[in-house]
Amino acid sequence: MIAMQFNLDHPDRVLANVILSSGTGLGETMPKEAAEAFKNNFEATFSALLEGAVSARTKRERPEILEVMRSHFMVPSNFPKYVFDSSTSDPNGVFNWNIKSRLGEIRKPTIVLAGEEDQATPVAANRLLADNIPGAKLHVIKDVGHFYQLERPTEFNSAVKQFITSLNLS
Amino acid sequence: MIAMQFNLDHPDRVLANVILSSGTGLGETMPKEAAEAFKNNFEATFSALLEGAVSARTKRERPEILEVMRSHFMVPSNFPKYVFDSSTSDPNGVFNWNIKSRLGEIRKPTIVLAGEEDQATPVAANRLLADNIPGAKLHVIKDVGHFYQLERPTEFNSAVKQFITSLNLS
Repeated sequence: MIAMQFNLDHPDRVLANVILSSGTGLGETMPKEAAEAFKNNFEATFSALLEGAVSARTKRERPEILEVMRSHFMVPSNFPKYVFDSSTSDPNGVFNWNIKSRLGEIRKPTIVLAGEEDQATPVAANRLLADNIPGAKLHVIKDVGHFYQLERPTEFNSAVKQFITSLNLS
Repeated sequence: MIAMQFNLDHPDRVLANVILSSGTGLGETMPKEAAEAFKNNFEATFSALLEGAVSARTKRERPEILEVMRSHFMVPSNFPKYVFDSSTSDPNGVFNWNIKSRLGEIRKPTIVLAGEEDQATPVAANRLLADNIPGAKLHVIKDVGHFYQLERPTEFNSAVKQFITSLNLS
């Protein structure tokens, strides 16, 4: 999100974009029940969000990833509820920030990587980016959730390397 | 290390320091056998280093921390051996960087936090900092290794908060 906004603010300082498990206007597609649940039962709802952000295969083969995410975010002094609350009320917070109408202004080579099983920033949210950023390519990765770089580091590194090589920057 | 160097380069831009599991001149105290082992058997030696960087209690109660560290650093494209090799040959790399004779120039309130069981940056390396930075306080934390902020997040956050409050910054 910060990278996309940076493209709008300083297009001359961008060579290319790797967009990973992202989206814009995410609050629009969040069901009202989910917003209510976050308000009324923050811990359980956030825990469910994390659970849905990791693929079934990762949960089976590398349970430590969800464990660490949980034990990091579920510590109130690491991630206080007021930080979440601020992010929902801030017009530039993670749920309200919306550059849908300006995606066409991003003119640099862009790859969008999305995990097929990501329920936090689903494929549809990433597809919207790739469909509206001129020339952007969408890669949807099977058996991966929100954390491609952790769930499949070797494949992630090689996808990024391949994209950078394709830019012929040198 | 970056923060300590920053104190020397831009003392006017520093209010105070939280130094966590650190040291300077670390290469001096590294046994020759360890340096050789890193050269000849990088993966096994690095894996042993990570093992020694996590406390026994953490390994027992929260095995996911060592698992994630391992699965991150043991992926060659995440942490290629040439990065390690560069860090050992660079005079400002993590092993050679040495400001022992200049620690007295750090004049801002400083707390040094060290895990009692940390074998990567042992208590002695942290004590050297606290002993030579004027007014610095050393806190040694029981049952913790190199990763205080992950191994005991609540206690870590509260130690940092207490230190910041003690500065009377507002």
